[in-house]
Formats: sequence, structure tokens, C-alpha cells
Amino acid sequence: MRIMRAEQFKLSREVEYGTPEQNESVRQTVEALRTRGDEALLELTERYDGVRLSAAQLRVGEEEIQAAYSRVEPDFLEALRLAAANIRAYHERQKRQSWMDVQPDGTMLGQVIRPLKRVGVYVPGGKAAYPSSVLMNVIPAQVAGVPEIVMVTPPATGGKPGIDPYILVAAAEAGVREMYRIGGAQAVAALAYGTATIPPVDKITGPGNIYVALAKRAVYGAVDIDSLAGPSEIAVLADETADPAYVAADLLSQAEHDEMASSLLITPSAALAEAVAAEVERQLPLLPRAAIARESIDRHGAVLLVDSLQAGVDVVNRLAPEHLEIMTADPMGLLGSIENAGAIFLGPYSSEPVGDYFAGPNHIIPTNGTARFSSPVNVDDFVKKSSLISYSREALLRDGAHIMTMARHEGLEGHARAIEARLDKEAAAGAAGHENTEGKRA
Amino acid sequence: MRIMRAEQFKLSREVEYGTPEQNESVRQTVEALRTRGDEALLELTERYDGVRLSAAQLRVGEEEIQAAYSRVEPDFLEALRLAAANIRAYHERQKRQSWMDVQPDGTMLGQVIRPLKRVGVYVPGGKAAYPSSVLMNVIPAQVAGVPEIVMVTPPATGGKPGIDPYILVAAAEAGVREMYRIGGAQAVAALAYGTATIPPVDKITGPGNIYVALAKRAVYGAVDIDSLAGPSEIAVLADETADPAYVAADLLSQAEHDEMASSLLITPSAALAEAVAAEVERQLPLLPRAAIARESIDRHGAVLLVDSLQAGVDVVNRLAPEHLEIMTADPMGLLGSIENAGAIFLGPYSSEPVGDYFAGPNHIIPTNGTARFSSPVNVDDFVKKSSLISYSREALLRDGAHIMTMARHEGLEGHARAIEARLDKEAAAGAAGHENTEGKRA
Repeated sequence: MRIMRAEQFKLSREVEYGTPEQNESVRQTVEALRTRGDEALLELTERYDGVRLSAAQLRVGEEEIQAAYSRVEPDFLEALRLAAANIRAYHERQKRQSWMDVQPDGTMLGQVIRPLKRVGVYVPGGKAAYPSSVLMNVIPAQVAGVPEIVMVTPPATGGKPGIDPYILVAAAEAGVREMYRIGGAQAVAALAYGTATIPPVDKITGPGNIYVALAKRAVYGAVDIDSLAGPSEIAVLADETADPAYVAADLLSQAEHDEMASSLLITPSAALAEAVAAEVERQLPLLPRAAIARESIDRHGAVLLVDSLQAGVDVVNRLAPEHLEIMTADPMGLLGSIENAGAIFLGPYSSEPVGDYFAGPNHIIPTNGTARFSSPVNVDDFVKKSSLISYSREALLRDGAHIMTMARHEGLEGHARAIEARLDKEAAAGAAGHENTEGKRA
Repeated sequence: MRIMRAEQFKLSREVEYGTPEQNESVRQTVEALRTRGDEALLELTERYDGVRLSAAQLRVGEEEIQAAYSRVEPDFLEALRLAAANIRAYHERQKRQSWMDVQPDGTMLGQVIRPLKRVGVYVPGGKAAYPSSVLMNVIPAQVAGVPEIVMVTPPATGGKPGIDPYILVAAAEAGVREMYRIGGAQAVAALAYGTATIPPVDKITGPGNIYVALAKRAVYGAVDIDSLAGPSEIAVLADETADPAYVAADLLSQAEHDEMASSLLITPSAALAEAVAAEVERQLPLLPRAAIARESIDRHGAVLLVDSLQAGVDVVNRLAPEHLEIMTADPMGLLGSIENAGAIFLGPYSSEPVGDYFAGPNHIIPTNGTARFSSPVNVDDFVKKSSLISYSREALLRDGAHIMTMARHEGLEGHARAIEARLDKEAAAGAAGHENTEGKRA
């Protein structure tokens, strides 16, 4: 693993999304789904997944879900259930209430927070079918109160017939009961626009290959989507108190994801730098995914030397890494100066896999520097807010002139007249009331 | 104004974003800014705005801002300040705190909420330069705690030299001190990638013409952007208790915005339908912007008859209008059944311009049905969240086996080993500690 000065490392990298051919293929798929619905969905499923289904076979039956339970190991199910409970507990803390501010004049201003009505979760097939990602996508939506959560996943995974039972069990444990065996751009388009069999959703989340990513981008606007994730990243900020074996193992856990993953150690300690580089070389060949980790470490990994921990913090803030581990004598003492990081792991026991699988915070986290302005998946992603304005008569009489002043300044006389119509009528009613009173007096 | 059954009205409409020529023009502009910075910015400003500036002239000086104050009317300034105070007070209610959950075993899980560091607000020139929109974009960012808020606006507006003083005053009142006289796609690209004169931002908000919208879409990913707004819309849900003159005036206040604006009345009352249609015909010709309002009402306006208020609510929920006014005998009683609406105005005194200018809630609201899944501009749009995980030794010893089970099931052995490295070392330390104790005993 190369060791270099932080100044010599290019902190940002460009990620391209799709060739023109891929974009055109996705455009055609979306158009086919919009115009021909189920018919196109079944055709494309046969073409891309090699499975000829009828419309009635699209939905996964309850008996198939139940059968999946008999195919997973008890220790997997136990771990999954404990993880799900932790994820649920963490995301419950993110829930927010609608509020209303009642003012003395009777005016009420508020913000109504409601769950989205229907959300689609995409789960990839094959080796990228991760039960943990099912939990991380579904549970925040469920905690938000989304009443209809639907999962789609390709009809065959890794050559096996049917759907991976671990995925089915994870979805069922998370509370999903509506699942369809469809994948690719055609599944995204089906969720966005609906077919005779599959009602349309309001939002689509979940990872997928380039066709899935391009399809999500293509349907954005008709529905909401989550962000388009780039390759995974870790930055470890450490001083001489860190255990080189822990640091190396954590860097490698990121590197084994894929060749594009990025693993960086940032440290002021030349001794730690040397020790971690040596540990990476020792541990790497022992991994089953050593070839992937090797390429990732060689192409995108580095040990970056800095003059001080504070200089290291500056590098972190410019990187805005997806995952940040702080292994220093006083990790909590640095927290206040970390401006940009998607998830922050403090101390020697907070290895990244703790967060990937189990602790509770979401493992879907902004990549490629976007932690500067975006956040891990959370309950807010599955709600919408409506402003509430109930203005009182008294407030309108008090404020009406100011509102008309602003409207007229902007050249929007119709806006001013909507207010004036009320003020005029109230004035007339007031005058009439005054006359009546006079009349009674007389 | 046409009156028809709700079932006969097409609820959704397609909004296209840009011709291929416009997209190509924007692509070239973005590329020019990325590669040639200030030089390209000054060239394009001359080409599109007809003003040759030096780099030193890009930033608006403090004296120009002060001079603007002497050019605005006192009643405008008073209204603006009252509006700004209301907007600030409302958005203060949206602020959220970071939180941390400290568990008995010493584990700490949390969510750190921080403001974005630098935000750019685009303000159009010419007739679309609305001081109210400056407040609505800037104040939520400021309440969120964004330390650097920068405004850009074209160097000449409506033939006048310099920048509209009302815009300068609105920005200054909202707290902006960094302003640049640039506009169009080149301004968006300058904000996204930075130039020698203009440091890059983390997020770009604010309305603009099609070139601005396309440029925002092009730079999304490098920075965050707000949503791409479609034409403005209002739906009024009313029964026979509503005042036809109020309803008509409110529909027309929307219609005068532009020819594409949509104004709908939804009512079970045939009498109200007739009366409002007549009032629209009476009031419309009296408006300065009658030609625009006429085209909007004829092309996109309608009175939709429904069988009941509840049926009207169903239409509203399918529309997901930007603005919804409820003028019925009991407006608050319908609130619970409104699932989709960006801003909800209750009762006869809550005319839409009250919210456009003054009450406090934001007037930048999801259009074109996107209130199904998105929200008015709010403080959350200017913060980012980081997950925090500080796992204790005790927790890792307890949960480590489950984490390894899940990692190994997903084929990520490196993840399991990052945990195992810790468990092994703790076990060895425990054994060593045991030996030491034994030794002492002996």
C-alpha cells in the first residue's frame, strides 16, 4: 500500500454514469413500459433474465415466502432479527411530529408531516443480493409510516431458480408483504408508471447495476428516487495509539467490496503508516476476495501523511468520506471539527462492519464527496411536509396592506386584489354594522 | 371558465425540460466554466447579458448595496422587514438538534446535524426578479446556520443598468453580504465549480429560465440543487359557503403568474361553480395582466364538479397541488384527509398571497404533482446529517458473532475478519490477564 504526503493525493474523482448506448437502451425500456405495461414487462424479463413469466406469476406468493424461512440457517435468522431491531430502534429516534403554532389573534401556522403512501425498494440479484441492504432500505420507510412498501428483485439469482431465500426472509422480517420477481430498468419503470399488475409508487430506493441507476434517473420527477451511489469509501484518521492490525483489517473490509472502492488511512504518525502498510500486505492475501482487494488498494488506496491530527481533519473535510473511522487517543475530542462525513465511527471497537450490519444507523451513505450536502438514508427520506396556513380575520386586517404593497411592487396586481376583495368586504360589513348600531341608538 | 365533471379532466400534465439545442448550449457553458473559469464567465456574461465586466467588477460592492436602500420606498422596506421576520420565525420552528443515545454498556449512537457550509442562491433578472423569492430562498439557509450564503443575479435587469435595488435590499435584509452580478447557465456553473473570483458552493437554489434549470440539472452531483420547478398551480376546494368573489380572485392571482399556470376550483356545489365562473369573467378583464390570466384560465383552468366534498378530497389527493385552499364550512375538519398538497390554506382569510408574501411558510413549493413525495423549501434542505457510532468493548464482545454471521453470509469475509481481529485480541488479552492473575496467586 503506497504511503504519500496528503498534498500529493487527488482527493476527488469523477464518476461517469453510463454510455450513450446504455442510456438509449434504458430510454427504450422506460418508453416500452409506459406504453405497453405488463406486456413489455414480461417481454423484457424474458429477454434480460431468461425467464418467461405470466402476469399472474410476477408477484411472489405467501407460500414461497414461508418456504424461504425453512431454507435459512437459524444463526442467520437470529442475527438478522437482532440487526433489524437495532435498525428500527435507531430510526425511531429520527421520527418527527407535525406541529402547529397557534397565535393570539387566532392565526394558526404549521407543518404537517406525513409518510409517503407507496415506496418501491429495488434489490439486486446475484452476488449483490444483500439481506442487510433490504433491512436498511425497508425499515426507515416502515418507521416513517409508509403503508405500502413493495420489493422488486430479479426472477433468478446467480443461476438459482426463484429468489434468494435470504432476501425473501429479510424483506418479510422487515415487514414487506408485496414482492415482485422483476429486475433491471424494466422493474424501475414498472414501479414508476405502474402496470395492470403493479400499482405505481411515489418513490424508488435501493442499489442496482448501471441500467437500474440510469432508469432511476430517467423516471425521477414522475417519482422520487434515492441518490445514485458511487463506489464505497473509507477514511481512517488515526494516531500512534491505533492498532495497525485493526486499521488494516478495516481498510481491507472496504477494499474487498469492489475494485473501485477506496480505502485511505490519514495519519501524522510515520510509524503507524509503515505498520499499517505492512499489515495490509500480511492480511490481504489471506482474503477470499484478495484479487478484488488488491486492485482496490493499489488503484484507490493510500496512506496519507499529514503534519498533525488537525491537518488530517482538514483532509477528511475535503474528502467528505462515506465512512470515517477515528482511532486516536481521544476520538470524541475531534468530533466537533469533522464537518463532512457520512458516518463517523469512533474508537477501536467501532469497526465499520459494526455499522454495515448491526448497530442501527443506516449503511446507505453518501459517496464521492456528497456527504458535503447529503445524508445517510433516514426517516425524513420517506415523509413529505405540507405547510399549513389558517389566517384569522384580525391578522388579515392587520397585515393586508403590507401584503398588497409587496404584491404590487412585484407587478402582481391580481395578488393584491385577492387581499383587497377581503378588506373591502370587511370594511363594508363594518360600515353596515356601524349603521345598524347607529340605527338602534336612534 | 369551463365547468366540467372532475372525471373528465386530465389531472396530470407532462412538463418537458429543454430542447436538444438548449441542452447542448448549457453543456458547452458548463464545460467552458470548468476549464476556463473567470475568463469564460466574463466572455459569456458579455455574450448573453451584453455587459463587459472585469473580474474585479463581478462582486457587488457594499456601497452599491447601501445606495440601493435610498432607492426603495419606505412602505416596501417596512413590508419586507415584517415579512422577513415572519418567515424567520416560521422556519426557526423547523430547526432540529443533533442527538445521541447513550446505552448502558457505554455504546453511543447518534445523529449529528450540521448546516451546509456554502450555498448559492440564484435570483433571475428582469420581471422575474422577486424580492419575496430572495427572502424565501435565503432565510431557511440562514436559519439552518449556513455561514456563507452567496447571491448571483444578472448584471442588468429589464434594461436598467446595475442590479434591481429591491433585490439588493431584500438580500441584504435577509443577511446576504456576498453578491455577484452574473446570471444564466454560466452563473450556475461558476457556483458549482468555482472560479478564481468565486469560491464553489455546496448547494444551488432559486428559480431561473430554462438555461438556469438545465444548468442546475447538469451540475447536480458536484453540488446539491433544489427541485426544478414547473408552472405554478392552485386548487380551491370549496362548498356553497364560500364567497365566489374570493374564490375567483384567488384563482386569478395564480393565473396571472404565467400562461402555463393552472387554477382549479373543485366543488360539489353547482351554484358556486356558476357563480365563480361568472366572477372570474367579471374580474379577469380588470387585471393589468389580463392577457396572461386569460390564456392560463382558458388552457389550464377549470371548475371541477364532484359529488361530495370527500370526492373533492380524492381529486385533490390525486392532483397533489402546489397550493390548496379549503373554503368550506369546516375547513379544519378536512385537513386529516388531505394526503397530498404542498401548502394548505384554510378558511376565507387565508388567501394564497398571504402565504406568497407574508405569513411565514415558504412559497417555494413542489409543483406538478410532486407534493406526493416532496416538500416546500425548509431548513432541512440546508443541513446534512452524519451517523455517529461509538461502540463499546462490551457491546462488540456481545454482538461480534452476529456481525460475523451476517458478513459471512454475504460473502464478505474481510468484514468478518475486521471484527474477528478485535475479538481474538480481546480473548488473548483476557487469557493473558487470567495468566497474570494466576501468576500473582502462585
